[in-house]
Amino acid sequence: MKLATLADGTPDGRLHIVSRDHQRSQPAVAARTLQAALERWVSVEATLRAESEALNAGGGEPFDPAHALAPLPRAWQWLDGSAYDSHGELMQKVFKLPPVDRGGRPLMYQGTSDRFYGPRHDVRLPSEDDGIDFEGEFGVIVDAVPMGTSAVDARKYIRLLVQINDWSLRKLAPIEMKTGFGWIQAKPASSMAPVAVTPDELGKHWRDARIDLPLKVDWNGRRFGAANGYPMSAGFDELVAHAAYSRDLVAGTVIGSGTVSNENFREIGSSCIAERRGIEMLDTGEPRTGFMCFGDTVRMEAAMPGGTPLFGAIDQKVVKA
Amino acid sequence: MKLATLADGTPDGRLHIVSRDHQRSQPAVAARTLQAALERWVSVEATLRAESEALNAGGGEPFDPAHALAPLPRAWQWLDGSAYDSHGELMQKVFKLPPVDRGGRPLMYQGTSDRFYGPRHDVRLPSEDDGIDFEGEFGVIVDAVPMGTSAVDARKYIRLLVQINDWSLRKLAPIEMKTGFGWIQAKPASSMAPVAVTPDELGKHWRDARIDLPLKVDWNGRRFGAANGYPMSAGFDELVAHAAYSRDLVAGTVIGSGTVSNENFREIGSSCIAERRGIEMLDTGEPRTGFMCFGDTVRMEAAMPGGTPLFGAIDQKVVKA
Repeated sequence: MKLATLADGTPDGRLHIVSRDHQRSQPAVAARTLQAALERWVSVEATLRAESEALNAGGGEPFDPAHALAPLPRAWQWLDGSAYDSHGELMQKVFKLPPVDRGGRPLMYQGTSDRFYGPRHDVRLPSEDDGIDFEGEFGVIVDAVPMGTSAVDARKYIRLLVQINDWSLRKLAPIEMKTGFGWIQAKPASSMAPVAVTPDELGKHWRDARIDLPLKVDWNGRRFGAANGYPMSAGFDELVAHAAYSRDLVAGTVIGSGTVSNENFREIGSSCIAERRGIEMLDTGEPRTGFMCFGDTVRMEAAMPGGTPLFGAIDQKVVKA
Repeated sequence: MKLATLADGTPDGRLHIVSRDHQRSQPAVAARTLQAALERWVSVEATLRAESEALNAGGGEPFDPAHALAPLPRAWQWLDGSAYDSHGELMQKVFKLPPVDRGGRPLMYQGTSDRFYGPRHDVRLPSEDDGIDFEGEFGVIVDAVPMGTSAVDARKYIRLLVQINDWSLRKLAPIEMKTGFGWIQAKPASSMAPVAVTPDELGKHWRDARIDLPLKVDWNGRRFGAANGYPMSAGFDELVAHAAYSRDLVAGTVIGSGTVSNENFREIGSSCIAERRGIEMLDTGEPRTGFMCFGDTVRMEAAMPGGTPLFGAIDQKVVKA
């Protein structure tokens, strides 16, 4: 099942069912908004799936991602992991951070969730001097998860998969990291691709609570990376359990993978500029690629093998606030 | 003007006007919930103030804080500062952290905001082994604040003042701090005192965007501290501006002061156990006071000189989840 939220003038937008080929959509009958659907998922899922099957058989209106908000335009909670160790190790080099003994614990921070940009929204930021960077990620949206849920049990609360651009201001990030308090200024609002999908849409590419598909990232129209989502050192199940240790997770909590990264980044490229700069530092002693300028665009899309669309594309521009 | 939210079976509860003496309350007419009021504050404030004046003249029902939720039972954003340097310096000693050159920037982390406990709610936590601690704080609730707002301009967006208990799990905090990502497991949901007040209720005790009143903290019925809220190294105006550098703040964003602490903590005591342990480490080389046990209670209240109530009291128990 595929879901999108179209702009209707309200902060939460209007939930739509989207056809498997992303050509058509129709307003969901079982719930007005995705948040409302998530809050009573067990009782509305069957109806939503029936609506989806009917739409896939025909009908609906043309689906235009240009009118899409983020599937969840705002959420009560956004927790972002950093589950690709090849990325984390490079970041330590870029920011000259000492290695951290995490004792097997996943990395995770709490980010701003009161707004997720839609896939075509311009992203307003204060200054090019802050080191504007994209971060291509995958994410899950969970049902209510009770405090203390194990990783094994966490899988059953994963309702939807999404594709995210976690905007970062790289010059501010190490300053904030050194405080130990995490990021405020370095992590403005993130963006989501237009379509949220149930895990079954991925077939065998949803594997071990990971998305086994490449995320294609283009910066100003040129391919920048196509790292595969699978090699997370902690799967989404483990990230959910980590988050739920001392809190109940509210329905609609979004949990991110962190920047998708693979060990063979020299061949397949990167999902963020900071990683490429890290590679340049390893290879030549200094970063050569600059960060984004106002007017730059970034496009991110993960499709099924054969080209069937999945989340649709994030395709947006950075502008001066 | 004083506002509270009473339980009515919905997540956001029902907004009530509270009389100045906290003896009576009545449902607000101008808005059903505090979030709704904050989203159109400029148009509803005058009506709410008229309702407040009428209630102070007489009428209403008895106000029972036992039925109060947090004034804002959930918020789209909770950002907590650490603006008392006497506390921060002690914490560095307790956790053996290296000193951080912050370059004059305030400290702030993003915490979970999908739930604030009410003032009498039991607080469910997973284990006594995690070092359960209270943190008595003050906070502000702001209107929508545009990205890039200065500290001077930030003052006009501060709509309400609140009193907060920022629960912390101290054994987990340093582990998470070392990652630089901030806290997830170490910072479960916080609590709020029952009454949110407009700054004018404090008269001269709202000064330089700081609350110039002592916060009395009792642990299991014994006075633990009574630090004054004034000596913040960055006022709430500066905290709001810091938060709004690269994001628009949504109406209803809650911004905390961090644990209230004064330099003469040996005389007036502390607003959290970790600070007392820090003092013990300074004085004797090791901490002697243990953290909280299940069944322990904490009470926190800041009243006006002369005893007029202000935020009401947080008075709650820690229980096993």
